[in-house]
Amino acid sequence: MSAASNPALDVKAELKKRADEVEAYLADCLRGRDIPARLLASMEYSLHAGGKRLRPALVLAFARLYGADGAELLPFAASLEFIHTYSLIHDDLPAMDDDDLRRGKPSNHKQFDEATAILAGDGLLTDAFSLMFSCADEGGVPAPRLVRAAQAVAAAAGSGGMVGGQALDMEYTARPGVAFEELRAMHAMKTGALITACCVAGAHLAGAEPPFVRRAREYGINVGAAFQIADDILDVVGDTKTLGKPVGSDERQGKTTYPSLLGLEKSRQLAKSRADAAADALAGLEHPQADFLRALALYIVERAH
Amino acid sequence: MSAASNPALDVKAELKKRADEVEAYLADCLRGRDIPARLLASMEYSLHAGGKRLRPALVLAFARLYGADGAELLPFAASLEFIHTYSLIHDDLPAMDDDDLRRGKPSNHKQFDEATAILAGDGLLTDAFSLMFSCADEGGVPAPRLVRAAQAVAAAAGSGGMVGGQALDMEYTARPGVAFEELRAMHAMKTGALITACCVAGAHLAGAEPPFVRRAREYGINVGAAFQIADDILDVVGDTKTLGKPVGSDERQGKTTYPSLLGLEKSRQLAKSRADAAADALAGLEHPQADFLRALALYIVERAH
Repeated sequence: MSAASNPALDVKAELKKRADEVEAYLADCLRGRDIPARLLASMEYSLHAGGKRLRPALVLAFARLYGADGAELLPFAASLEFIHTYSLIHDDLPAMDDDDLRRGKPSNHKQFDEATAILAGDGLLTDAFSLMFSCADEGGVPAPRLVRAAQAVAAAAGSGGMVGGQALDMEYTARPGVAFEELRAMHAMKTGALITACCVAGAHLAGAEPPFVRRAREYGINVGAAFQIADDILDVVGDTKTLGKPVGSDERQGKTTYPSLLGLEKSRQLAKSRADAAADALAGLEHPQADFLRALALYIVERAH
Repeated sequence: MSAASNPALDVKAELKKRADEVEAYLADCLRGRDIPARLLASMEYSLHAGGKRLRPALVLAFARLYGADGAELLPFAASLEFIHTYSLIHDDLPAMDDDDLRRGKPSNHKQFDEATAILAGDGLLTDAFSLMFSCADEGGVPAPRLVRAAQAVAAAAGSGGMVGGQALDMEYTARPGVAFEELRAMHAMKTGALITACCVAGAHLAGAEPPFVRRAREYGINVGAAFQIADDILDVVGDTKTLGKPVGSDERQGKTTYPSLLGLEKSRQLAKSRADAAADALAGLEHPQADFLRALALYIVERAH
């Protein structure tokens, strides 16, 4: 576990390397399709706006940890970035969070227009499933594995997962007296479910047995929670350049956050304990991918210190 | 072909019977899921607003024509109604067609609010894929068939199909000089692709061989075109009660339509010839489901007379 003993250095470079691999695939995965020009431009604008590509990295790391090779899995990994990007476009809409900036650039509806932004989100979400299914083409992933993996993603992204979590987030924003358990459950739906599904889908793509799927789920649930708590902390202590949005936006919007409920120090402790639980879920697995995943869990929390 | 010789009577009752079967499944398919209350209410409001349930009927008719039984296919058939419903909710949004009425009732964002309507659409679209995948559970549809069927639907609903068609529709609305070929191609994406995918998916669910999948596609392409031309005609000659929206709304919105380009009589002739082409695609198939499908093609056109 040498990677885990020096997480900040190794994991950042490793994550970048993995992001580049996904980036190369994303660069022209929409080319050659019959998509109207303005819609295509809008989809590509948000898809190529950068980001850590954390979700595809999780899919690929678990698939490789459990014995599947990477190349034919890239479309599936990329589909998670399609889904994540659609959710950001729709969250930013005037009727939702009404955000003008995303990663330091005009949000999609500011750069294009509202109708185009809605359609770009709808297109990315639907095309994500096309990408997943394309993995079944000639000599790719066996169909039963693919169905289990896609099923996990659809359940996590839908009304009982990410979409439901965004509905609760809107309900809770500016509502005083949101309880810790409500906040936890909302984030588990809004961000935790899809992150967990990435890990579980990676395991299914490799045809992993149930105990190993459970480890992937356990890792995902805890890393997802750690990630969200760290995000809340960064909104208080981060800097605008790193965040790509103004610091303190949660407080101005009246959002209940982990720091607002628990304070900074307790939030940091909680994030650390969730990251440790994620690493523990992979205990005993001697594999470079397991080293990366353990280091990644700690790195996510380190960012918030 | 007794059904085809008296299409208006038989097919209407038969279509109603098939709609009731889908309706019974839709009635509680969202129950027991962990969906926030207001979001669930919004999704059910539009899902249960009626309609002919044409798309599920096409899926089931082709699956049965090619030898698959219906019961385990209901979730897949229902998923097409989820996708159709999401598209209506998003099309009605203020940033899109800005329609206050849908089937004689307030449109979703009028009954709830814009954010909820966007999320209800996102939820229905994502949950549609969950429904499809649920057909693979224990003793259901073999995974390779399911993947082919779902792949056809995703491609038809995405940015190269329905979503792209809506983007073009917005671009063409109020733009003078839309050519016949542009109109045809736009409708083929906006409504034709998903209707065709219903037929193709039904064939795949039954494990049909390529020549039979091609017949399903040929039928779908032509029925989809006939359906759209009839829809344009009904907007001119129909009555408000049947349409659930004011007559003449296309003209007021400045939309180019088949009647505006070709006149009513030529439009009717074109619709009839596309319906005939749909029926011809099933020539020689002696089966009650083929009788129904042929009669359905003619019935769609009869409505516009």
